[in-house]
Amino acid sequence: MIDVDEAHTIVLEHVRPGPTIDVALGNALYATLAEPILCDVDYPPFDRSLMDGYAVRSRDVAAADRAPVTLEIAGQIAAGSEAIRPLEAGEAMQINTGAPIPSGADAVVRVEETELAASGKSVVIRAAVGPGKFVTPRGEYVSAGRTVLTAGTVMTPLEIGVAATCGASMVSVFRRPRVAVLVTGDELVDVDTTPVGPQIRDSNRYILESLIKTAHASPEVLPRAGDDRDTLRRSIETGARCEALCITGGVSMGAFDFVPEVLAECGATMHIRKLAIKPGRPVIFATMPGGAAVFALPGNPLSAFVAFELLVRPALAMMQGRPTAPRSGVRAMLSGRVAPTRDRRAFIPARVTIDKDGGLIAEPLSWRGSGDPFGAATANALIVQPPGAHGASNGEHVLVMLLDRV
Amino acid sequence: MIDVDEAHTIVLEHVRPGPTIDVALGNALYATLAEPILCDVDYPPFDRSLMDGYAVRSRDVAAADRAPVTLEIAGQIAAGSEAIRPLEAGEAMQINTGAPIPSGADAVVRVEETELAASGKSVVIRAAVGPGKFVTPRGEYVSAGRTVLTAGTVMTPLEIGVAATCGASMVSVFRRPRVAVLVTGDELVDVDTTPVGPQIRDSNRYILESLIKTAHASPEVLPRAGDDRDTLRRSIETGARCEALCITGGVSMGAFDFVPEVLAECGATMHIRKLAIKPGRPVIFATMPGGAAVFALPGNPLSAFVAFELLVRPALAMMQGRPTAPRSGVRAMLSGRVAPTRDRRAFIPARVTIDKDGGLIAEPLSWRGSGDPFGAATANALIVQPPGAHGASNGEHVLVMLLDRV
Repeated sequence: MIDVDEAHTIVLEHVRPGPTIDVALGNALYATLAEPILCDVDYPPFDRSLMDGYAVRSRDVAAADRAPVTLEIAGQIAAGSEAIRPLEAGEAMQINTGAPIPSGADAVVRVEETELAASGKSVVIRAAVGPGKFVTPRGEYVSAGRTVLTAGTVMTPLEIGVAATCGASMVSVFRRPRVAVLVTGDELVDVDTTPVGPQIRDSNRYILESLIKTAHASPEVLPRAGDDRDTLRRSIETGARCEALCITGGVSMGAFDFVPEVLAECGATMHIRKLAIKPGRPVIFATMPGGAAVFALPGNPLSAFVAFELLVRPALAMMQGRPTAPRSGVRAMLSGRVAPTRDRRAFIPARVTIDKDGGLIAEPLSWRGSGDPFGAATANALIVQPPGAHGASNGEHVLVMLLDRV
Repeated sequence: MIDVDEAHTIVLEHVRPGPTIDVALGNALYATLAEPILCDVDYPPFDRSLMDGYAVRSRDVAAADRAPVTLEIAGQIAAGSEAIRPLEAGEAMQINTGAPIPSGADAVVRVEETELAASGKSVVIRAAVGPGKFVTPRGEYVSAGRTVLTAGTVMTPLEIGVAATCGASMVSVFRRPRVAVLVTGDELVDVDTTPVGPQIRDSNRYILESLIKTAHASPEVLPRAGDDRDTLRRSIETGARCEALCITGGVSMGAFDFVPEVLAECGATMHIRKLAIKPGRPVIFATMPGGAAVFALPGNPLSAFVAFELLVRPALAMMQGRPTAPRSGVRAMLSGRVAPTRDRRAFIPARVTIDKDGGLIAEPLSWRGSGDPFGAATANALIVQPPGAHGASNGEHVLVMLLDRV
C-alpha cells in the first residue's frame, strides 16, 4: 500500500507527452502549447495614442499650464487611419485612442483639457504635456521575435487573445489523449434498462466518460465486459490502442482478482497495486508493452472518482505536456465534523462555500460510505485528512482539494 | 455610472431562462437540468452485501465471539447472481460485495473473521454479528419516485453518475444560449494578416468566442464591422436573432459613440451605459425588441474580459436556468502592491497560488494598463478593490475573484 504522493511520482515517471498537432486558434481553448508562440510584429506596431484628444509637439504647449495656447487643427486621425502629412509647429491633430501619432508630434493632450474653437479650425490647449505623454511607443509591450507564450501554456481565453495579437492563426498543441473506458461487472445493466434481481445500473461508464472530458482528453467507451477472463483480455488489448485505459471492476471480488492476472497475460508491467487512500484502496496502475497507461479503479463511483482525480488526471495532464505537482490543499474552516483516520489518507466529499469575509467554509457531505452514489454527488471539494489524524470538529481548519470553481 | 452589483441585478431582471431540450445523458456534462431527476427504482434495489464474506443468520453466530461456530456452506453469491434457495439454520453462503443477501440471512460476516474448512464445505465463524450487520437494506439510499437531482443542477461527473443510476438516459436541460460576437473597428485585421500602418490584429473575436464557450454557450462569430453605421445596424439585426449579442467597439471614440444610437434605431431599450469599474467603464447593456440581450463591451481585451465576467457570464447562466449571485471574493494574502482607487471598483489581474500552509497568495500581474494585451494573460484571478480604497501592500489581505482552478 503506497502513499498518494509516491503514487503520483510513479505514474508521472511512466507516462510522457503525446504527439502534437496543429490546430486553428479558434479550436485551441484549454489545449496545451507544444511550441512557444512568438510575436511576429512589434506591439503596438506604431507609436499609439492612449487617449482621445489632440496630438501635439510638446514644446508648443510647454507653457499651456500658465497661459492657454491656441493651435491650428491640421487634420483628424481615427483608429485605423493615418495622418496625411507630418505635424508642423503651431499645429494639433485630433486623434482617437489607438490611432497612430503623426510624425512631428510627440505627445497627446486629453480632450478634457482642450476647447475647440467655434470655427472648428483651431483648438485651445489648457494643459502642458511632456514628450511622450499619452503615447505608447512602438514595441513598448513586446518587440518582434519575442516569445509571448511558452510551451506548456494551457490556452485560456486571454492567452488565445495574445496568440491572435501575435499572428498565430495555427498553433502547435499536444493532441488530446484518447482514453478507453472499460467497465466490468456481471451485475451491471445499461442506463435504459430496469434492473431486476441482483442487477444495478452502470454509472461508472458515464462518470469516467465525463471526467475524461473535463481533463481535455477524448473518451472511447468500450462495450462492458462481464466477469469473464477472455472478454476482459480482448477488451484490454483493444483499449491499449489508446494512450490510456481506465478499467473499473464491478464490485465483485472475483472480477477484481483477475484484472492483475489478465494484465500480466497481456504483458503489462505492474507499478501500483494498492493505494493508501480512503475511499479507493484497490487501485492498479500498469503500463502495456505498447506504452498505454492502464488504471484499474474501484467499482464504487466515489472511489473511482477520487482515484481518477489523484492519479488519472495528472497522467492525462502529463500526456498533454503539463507535468503537474500533486494538487495542493487549500485551507478552509470546517462546518461539521470529520472522523479520525487510521493508516490511509482520507478524502471526504465536501461542499465548499465562501463566507462574507472571503473565508472558505467546508461542509462534509452526508455521504453514507462506499455504496452510496447519491450523498457525495454535489461535492465541489475533498477534505484531505492525513493518516493517523485525530479528526476535526466544527470551526477547525482543514485542507481541501478544490474540484470545481467555488 | 452604476455599481457592479446594481448592474448585475439589472441584467438578471432582463434575461430569462431559454428553451429546454432533451439530450442523451452522455452529452449533458455541464448542462443545467430543466426538470428534476427522480429515481425510478429503490436504491439499492435489493438488500445488498457491503463486504466480501459469508451471509448468515445472525442468531446462528450470536456466540461466535466466545466460541467459534461452524456453518455449512450452502452456496456462493457473486455480484450479479442470486442464491438458488433460501438460507437455512446452520448454513452460510459465500457472498461478494454488491451481491444480494439470500432470503433467510440477515447479516454478513467479513471474510477476515472466518476460516474455510479444508473440505471447502464448511466455514468457521469467529465473530458475532447483529441483525443487519454489513447489509445495506433495499431503498436505504433512495426510494423509488424520490427526487435525486433538482432542476437547476449543473451536471458534474458525479451528478451524471447519479442520473445513470436512476435510469435517466435522456435528460431535459436548458439549451445552450447562442451568443453572437460582433467586433467593430476600422483598425482591425484578421489574425492571418500582417498589420500595416495603423492596423492591429483583432484579438477580441477569439477572446469572446473562448469566453462564451467557457460559459457553456454557443458562440456565433459575425463578420467584423468597420466603423460604419449601416453595416453596424445590419450586423446588430443579424446578431439579435441569437439570445445574446456581444459587441466590442474598436478603440475609436467615433465607433463607440454611435453604438447607442444605432441600437436605438434598432428599437433597443438601454438599461446600462456606464459601469463604475476599472478597467471597463464604457459598458452598454440593452435589450432588443425580440428579447435578445446586447452587451457592448470596451475594445481593449482586458476591459472586455472583465465586463464579460461581471455581466455577460451571469446573464448566460440565467439563460441556462442558473440565476447567480455576484461572485464572492475569496481572501488571499497580497504579494506585491495595489494602488488606491478613486470612484470606480478596480479589478486587478493577478496570479493566485497556494502556499505550503494552504493559504492563498495573490500576486498582481505586471500589466501596463488598458493598451497592454500581454501582461494580464496569465491571470487566474482578479483582485477586487472597492471605490475609495487606500490600496494595499505586501502581506495585507485582499479579496480576489477566482477565474480558474487555482
